[in-house]
Amino acid sequence: MVSKRMLQLGTARSVIRELFEYGNQRAKEVGRENVFDFSLGNPSVPAPDAVNENAIRILQEQPEVIHCYTSAQGDAAARQRFADSLNRRFGGDYTADQFYITVGAAASLCCVFNGLTCPGDEFIVFAPYFPEYKVFIEGAGANMVLIPPEIEHFQIDFDAFEKAITPNTKGVVVNSPNNPSGVVYSRQTLEQLAAILEKKEAEYGHPIYLISDEPYREIAFAGVEVPWIPHIYKDTIVCYSFSKSLSLPGERLGYVLVPGQVTDSKEVYAAVAGAGRSLGYVNAPSLFQQVTSLCCDMTSDLSVYEKNCELLVHSLREMGYHVAQPGGAFYLFPRSLEPDDMAFSERAKQFDLLLVPGSGFGAPGHFRLAYCVQTDMIERALPKFKALADSYRG
Amino acid sequence: MVSKRMLQLGTARSVIRELFEYGNQRAKEVGRENVFDFSLGNPSVPAPDAVNENAIRILQEQPEVIHCYTSAQGDAAARQRFADSLNRRFGGDYTADQFYITVGAAASLCCVFNGLTCPGDEFIVFAPYFPEYKVFIEGAGANMVLIPPEIEHFQIDFDAFEKAITPNTKGVVVNSPNNPSGVVYSRQTLEQLAAILEKKEAEYGHPIYLISDEPYREIAFAGVEVPWIPHIYKDTIVCYSFSKSLSLPGERLGYVLVPGQVTDSKEVYAAVAGAGRSLGYVNAPSLFQQVTSLCCDMTSDLSVYEKNCELLVHSLREMGYHVAQPGGAFYLFPRSLEPDDMAFSERAKQFDLLLVPGSGFGAPGHFRLAYCVQTDMIERALPKFKALADSYRG
Repeated sequence: MVSKRMLQLGTARSVIRELFEYGNQRAKEVGRENVFDFSLGNPSVPAPDAVNENAIRILQEQPEVIHCYTSAQGDAAARQRFADSLNRRFGGDYTADQFYITVGAAASLCCVFNGLTCPGDEFIVFAPYFPEYKVFIEGAGANMVLIPPEIEHFQIDFDAFEKAITPNTKGVVVNSPNNPSGVVYSRQTLEQLAAILEKKEAEYGHPIYLISDEPYREIAFAGVEVPWIPHIYKDTIVCYSFSKSLSLPGERLGYVLVPGQVTDSKEVYAAVAGAGRSLGYVNAPSLFQQVTSLCCDMTSDLSVYEKNCELLVHSLREMGYHVAQPGGAFYLFPRSLEPDDMAFSERAKQFDLLLVPGSGFGAPGHFRLAYCVQTDMIERALPKFKALADSYRG
Repeated sequence: MVSKRMLQLGTARSVIRELFEYGNQRAKEVGRENVFDFSLGNPSVPAPDAVNENAIRILQEQPEVIHCYTSAQGDAAARQRFADSLNRRFGGDYTADQFYITVGAAASLCCVFNGLTCPGDEFIVFAPYFPEYKVFIEGAGANMVLIPPEIEHFQIDFDAFEKAITPNTKGVVVNSPNNPSGVVYSRQTLEQLAAILEKKEAEYGHPIYLISDEPYREIAFAGVEVPWIPHIYKDTIVCYSFSKSLSLPGERLGYVLVPGQVTDSKEVYAAVAGAGRSLGYVNAPSLFQQVTSLCCDMTSDLSVYEKNCELLVHSLREMGYHVAQPGGAFYLFPRSLEPDDMAFSERAKQFDLLLVPGSGFGAPGHFRLAYCVQTDMIERALPKFKALADSYRG
């Protein structure tokens, strides 16, 4: 008597959530310090002081106005600050009316998928991928077409990609720096992607939108370039969130940017806004529209992620794990030590290592390790990873 | 190349928004103080001091944890506080796990409609009604069935209602105190509604859910009872928001309550949560989950609304306007002085009165007057209402 799809979505616990709950249970038995939980992508560094300082100042200075409705697309001053920031950083010429402020990255994606989707449309996604993409795309009434992973470097298998594009392809989703692999798409990868899309756009005579989901844009390690994708491919729509850069995942604040260069940009923008309306997003939280826009040129102290990454990559490789070189975010995606990543994850539990199997991300034979944790937990976990590896050597 | 429905929703400005923009334009010409804008339902009284004090205190005391993800259904302590408050006030036995915290009333409704809807389902709505109901219901893939208004008192036309119920009726929406009429459904109305629904449930052998959208629950005037609907009808799902009671419309915070007595309550709750996931609502804003739950027994100083109401009802009636007796919220819904409410609203503009035509609310021949404004603006507007009425006596 209720929607079967929604019941299933509300009932089926994600593997990540299962592991997290298991970890809490296990912590009661053996102590929190003896459980090595690498399951969740919750930022481990606090928001910059300026975030809380600005929030407090605004609450003190504007207590009567700050909590009012904003316009649906977001407060005009906040949108202007977002535009100015990107123009400064990437040399764009974006304007406030190209920004639609959202209730976080998931909302950004849902508004874009729902705004774009016509009956029969498909969106292409590259494995490994964030599994909620499938939920959001299908929720919009479209189909997700998954491209198998290029498992050496987690760039793109272009042969498979090109074969998967059809006249029904409405869009392609990229997520770089990537969850779950931590890999950053190189400029060469993005240029090749753009070239194929441009060719197909010309062949089909309609736009194919590149949806750049980039909540990890600011988390890139020394020497790694995260190219600004709208400069590489004209029909790029940017979905952003401050959850990771400012360590504010609970506050739900992000935006969709539809650059003026995008084909039918005004229609796309209006459809994104219409989707926001239809989905019940009246406006993004008003206080944090101000706070994030005043802090959008800052980040949390992200250095711990790079430190954790170096420690883990170096140590795991020494132990014999195969780890594709990450460039950012706070995830590693090594190969599991047996082909069955579910079995591997189960075995890891014997060592109190909580590792998410890669199957859920569309890449069996791997596991995800979220290292947005305290460095000392990683140090204490290393002997466990060693013991896990040894257990496979019999 | 984009979704036609979303493009239309994102392009078509609502009549209310049109009026509001017209008012801003007109204010530039004749001065803000000479434009009498009764178009918008934005609370005119500030949030209680305790709201901002709690927000500041939490930001100072818990800067490292307050911005984290909460569980999808909301922070457990916050849900417990909501349950305790309702149990104290209404004598229920609600538990934390019956609450699903949302990004405001619109999100509450969207999660419920999407969670409940199976193919072919219908939701019954009573005119006059909040026009976004249609957007949300159709967005969920269901059909809205509109019951014409009972224009004497804006209670319910039960004959029309009973005829409209079919085996496809999944739910019925009530909104009391009502936007746009300001009317509160009497206990008698609600009991008669419940009796009909119970009869039809028995006849069809399946539940018909009563969706109580009650953001105005706390805004009720002296001597007016706002009955607690779950005590009157078992299969009631409550959609709440703190936008009006705490004057926080911009912060987007509300909840869905699925009481344990509801048929298939666990499935309904899971489907609501699944819908939240599918629509991209990861969790409600974390800081304001804490703030609203700590302040949920308070309200803003709502006395100005009652004062404004009395002044307007008394004066308008004296001038010859027909005004159904309101009981709460901050709207009046008088009859327009000619049958064509669009023409009436246009004529009112000549007197710089901005009044929303009733047609958009499903009740032609009326107009909505949002009196969440400063009392002195009402006082200054009264001669305009008089002149408008006089203009019809020619």
